[in-house]
Amino acid sequence: MADPVSPLAPPGGFPDLPPVAGVRLASIAAGVRYTGRADVMLAVMDPGTAMAGVFTRSATRAAPVLDCEAKIGQTGAEGAAILVNAGNANAFTGTRGVDAVTAITGQVAAATGLPEARVFTASTGVIGEPLPHDRITGALGDLVQNLDPGGIAGAAQASMTTDTFPKGAARQVEIGGKTITISGIAKGSGMIAPDMATMLVFIFTDARIARPELQAMVARLNAQTFNCITVDGDTSTSDTLLVAATGQSGVDVADEVAFETALHAVMRDLAHLVVRDGEGASKFVTVEVSGAADDADAHKAGLAIANSPLVKTAIAGEDPNWGRVVMAVGKSGAAADRDRLSIRFGDILVAEYGWVSPTYREADAAAHMKRDEIEIAVDLGIGAGAATGWTCDETARYIEINAG
Amino acid sequence: MADPVSPLAPPGGFPDLPPVAGVRLASIAAGVRYTGRADVMLAVMDPGTAMAGVFTRSATRAAPVLDCEAKIGQTGAEGAAILVNAGNANAFTGTRGVDAVTAITGQVAAATGLPEARVFTASTGVIGEPLPHDRITGALGDLVQNLDPGGIAGAAQASMTTDTFPKGAARQVEIGGKTITISGIAKGSGMIAPDMATMLVFIFTDARIARPELQAMVARLNAQTFNCITVDGDTSTSDTLLVAATGQSGVDVADEVAFETALHAVMRDLAHLVVRDGEGASKFVTVEVSGAADDADAHKAGLAIANSPLVKTAIAGEDPNWGRVVMAVGKSGAAADRDRLSIRFGDILVAEYGWVSPTYREADAAAHMKRDEIEIAVDLGIGAGAATGWTCDETARYIEINAG
Repeated sequence: MADPVSPLAPPGGFPDLPPVAGVRLASIAAGVRYTGRADVMLAVMDPGTAMAGVFTRSATRAAPVLDCEAKIGQTGAEGAAILVNAGNANAFTGTRGVDAVTAITGQVAAATGLPEARVFTASTGVIGEPLPHDRITGALGDLVQNLDPGGIAGAAQASMTTDTFPKGAARQVEIGGKTITISGIAKGSGMIAPDMATMLVFIFTDARIARPELQAMVARLNAQTFNCITVDGDTSTSDTLLVAATGQSGVDVADEVAFETALHAVMRDLAHLVVRDGEGASKFVTVEVSGAADDADAHKAGLAIANSPLVKTAIAGEDPNWGRVVMAVGKSGAAADRDRLSIRFGDILVAEYGWVSPTYREADAAAHMKRDEIEIAVDLGIGAGAATGWTCDETARYIEINAG
Repeated sequence: MADPVSPLAPPGGFPDLPPVAGVRLASIAAGVRYTGRADVMLAVMDPGTAMAGVFTRSATRAAPVLDCEAKIGQTGAEGAAILVNAGNANAFTGTRGVDAVTAITGQVAAATGLPEARVFTASTGVIGEPLPHDRITGALGDLVQNLDPGGIAGAAQASMTTDTFPKGAARQVEIGGKTITISGIAKGSGMIAPDMATMLVFIFTDARIARPELQAMVARLNAQTFNCITVDGDTSTSDTLLVAATGQSGVDVADEVAFETALHAVMRDLAHLVVRDGEGASKFVTVEVSGAADDADAHKAGLAIANSPLVKTAIAGEDPNWGRVVMAVGKSGAAADRDRLSIRFGDILVAEYGWVSPTYREADAAAHMKRDEIEIAVDLGIGAGAATGWTCDETARYIEINAG
């Protein structure tokens, strides 16, 4: 917890997120594991709210994730609540973990007057230890009393584990003369942080949209944002993205490109912030793959590059080692033809037609590698498939954090 | 090259490998890249030799690999030659790379009197640089003159790149009152070492076996040995395993379990030696998965554990962090049920039925983690599928080597 803030953190600090009509939040220090800091947050949405969600596909996912999955498909538009605790992931805790979720969702329902099926929870922190759920339910009275439309900054703080800074992003968009607000928060510092911390994302909007359309939009945008980031390729047991649309703007956005564009921007910003807080990260890396047989192949090749320990350590060493990029493409399983491959670092053409470019000078690429933000672009020269992903470098600090 | 020898190297040094009838080897300092050391080896096998091989599946595999693949399926039993250089992988070198292979195989054929289709090559070292093949062909006269049945130790040395020790293994087996010898060498220090070094394995035996049977046996054993090791999950563009059976023992081994068992042992020993020379390795780790839906699922779960940066850094830190093992199983894609999973570190039962075991004491597991050789056993509790894999830990030294 005493780690210095990541060098890739936004210089301006946590942004001033606009409140979203129909959403109130509160946070509190409940002593789940940490002392002297807030570790539980509650968000309560007014009646008329559509909920959408995307969750980890891990086969060993945690009890709160399984509970959310069971509830998210319901098409009601009552009010809803999200309760999050940090410090204990309630993962791999057997039937006691299920009981803890039931206890919490039951008591949140009682305290807020919502049906239990509309109470979603997420837990993040150590795994394999029983969740002291009575500390959470014991704090519910205070939480409900302190619900506030401006509570989102505190909520972002309360859901942190090994994060070195809180993460928020927002957009406002005008549709039909009315303003629609989207405000979101995220936590995560690596796909998995030392104590099995995980990625949690909560986004709130006053747009009006039915659940099926919202779910489809969130799934589509998730494929282009959170599913395109990696810190270490280790997938958490608790990853949760929940989007709540209260409808209070009165504007129907189901077919509004401007809304989808704004939601995409919020999700992409939050995804980038998670990478910028990647464990030990010193460089933010964008990987662009084009010319693949299809988009899925491009995604596959991009993730192989972004997850390769040898690519990531080369970046940490500011070494324009394009041979490792060739290796990663080769192992990815994407269709590739060595003799059609071209590679750029930033604007610098490194290799083309299966060999180093005649114009390439290593000094140019080395200068690009000294930047905080690196771009690796690979054209497979086969088709029209394209994808973009984001990662960070792998430094000795990553080992210190995780072997410490 | 000045790295100290891996702490996991066998204490006895390079073993005394028995010569194989019908095989002569030589090595020489040809100055391909290194100075002051042998960097080219040649093995020549007498007429009657069956050749089998297994190669990297990388889509960006190197020119020598493509040439070997094109030749290996031929069923002839003439003599054969293997020429290997270290220091330059002749990978991602476009048509010039193909020309270099053609030049080398043509001149080896001329110097040995073998058909060109029976000359196999492997190159390991930096990629993207043209192979100075004239330095190799210029040394052929001396190589051929110095061919010797006892030349295998020198050949193992000549094929090293970032390896910290040469690797050899042998078995002799009695069948029908005659002795059959199997002697093999390997190079590799990580799947990929700093300059794109790769795994190369050459095994020689005087057993008599037709090519199709030998190929099937080698492929079967490869799946249980070299395909079960990982250092960093990064697959090389040059991985090559060649097995030459000269037939000179006169003993047909196609259906001899004793022979297959001995060949398995040689391949497993060499695979373990590659892991023991893994970049920065301080622990040798055996991962055993049982109770999977099938063997393929067990292999998948085992490799996910063995490749997980968080598992490997925990081992480096001597931390019995079983939560990371749960995470790796969950992300592997293997069918798993959290509530049937059990985990052991060595003899210590850590978790069962989806939660920490009531008998588990962290001090016991912590003591196991202090050993040089660690065992992680996972039972998925679903079926009868099983697999064993081997890896090493991930230390700060790995980052130093690769970001340096």
